[in-house]
Amino acid sequence: MSKVILDMSMSLDGFIAGANVGKEYPMGVNGEDLHTWIFSTPKDKVDADVEREMFAKTGAVILGNRTFEVGVDLWGDVPFPVPSFVLTHKKRETLIKKSGTFTFVTDGIESALQQAQAVAGDKDVRLMGADIAQQFLSAGLIDEIQINHVPILLGDGVRLFDLGMKNIQLEKDRVLDSPHATHIHYRVLKGGS
Amino acid sequence: MSKVILDMSMSLDGFIAGANVGKEYPMGVNGEDLHTWIFSTPKDKVDADVEREMFAKTGAVILGNRTFEVGVDLWGDVPFPVPSFVLTHKKRETLIKKSGTFTFVTDGIESALQQAQAVAGDKDVRLMGADIAQQFLSAGLIDEIQINHVPILLGDGVRLFDLGMKNIQLEKDRVLDSPHATHIHYRVLKGGS
Repeated sequence: MSKVILDMSMSLDGFIAGANVGKEYPMGVNGEDLHTWIFSTPKDKVDADVEREMFAKTGAVILGNRTFEVGVDLWGDVPFPVPSFVLTHKKRETLIKKSGTFTFVTDGIESALQQAQAVAGDKDVRLMGADIAQQFLSAGLIDEIQINHVPILLGDGVRLFDLGMKNIQLEKDRVLDSPHATHIHYRVLKGGS
Repeated sequence: MSKVILDMSMSLDGFIAGANVGKEYPMGVNGEDLHTWIFSTPKDKVDADVEREMFAKTGAVILGNRTFEVGVDLWGDVPFPVPSFVLTHKKRETLIKKSGTFTFVTDGIESALQQAQAVAGDKDVRLMGADIAQQFLSAGLIDEIQINHVPILLGDGVRLFDLGMKNIQLEKDRVLDSPHATHIHYRVLKGGS
């Protein structure tokens, strides 16, 4: 069964996007600084390896409706070249894009996960969006977390880990460092505490 | 002039103490997990080096009144063997402890900083407490930040970096990793953005 991965670029103060996310600021104010490790030229070798691995391992994506609405024009495609599942409250026909499809799921995260795992094969199911991440974490459905720790303080924005979650034990099993980001990989320990 | 250092152990979700900090839980619920890197036996060599450096470089401490009240009995002394300055609203006589003094400062952070720098010599002035950290950061008075990133999700507690701060540029200049913590050192870039 494919693993469920949360892989996010996060500022030192815990934000995965800046303030005022919307069509004008898809990553929020200053939020694009979170992805310098992906978009800088020349690209650092460590960052390039991490990015390559991220694409190679992704077999399906689950994202929230807000992330979809802000991103769909920007990407002009699916965010990764694999089937994408959008968690939403509004039924909608599947949307076919160049490198994959957006399927709209209205019956909750477990249904989305089931559908994503059915197509991901031996690759990972990747989550996108803070709200989706928190829902999956609270439900104990995340296997691995990779945080690309970015050395900036955004001051305001979208928090990845918000108040009110459970205490969750992790095991850090890899640290890769570049000037733009420290990529730390964690396994989520289950049934422990 | 001595530098102003913020050096904190922080969970992946941004907490430097658990929920319900008080006499019963000085570090908050599960908050002691943040200091496994200091208190585990045997101690990891990386962690031991980081701790030794932390003590060797500290010339004075500035802390908030809440940190003082929760900690004073627990420490049975000053938190570091150097002069400590407590920011408070209530005037109080200097308290003499075994390895240093608590001086109570009622006229604001700049006064506390001046008094701390006067005694720190060529060593650092170290800040303790999230509230103090946020006040000094907002005032642009912090030179260096060391975050001991601890691989746990506490779920709730005292946030180090709270909403409403300014966007602040950092430069990561050292990463030291142990199984218990990833110690990342940042310089605060000033007058830039």
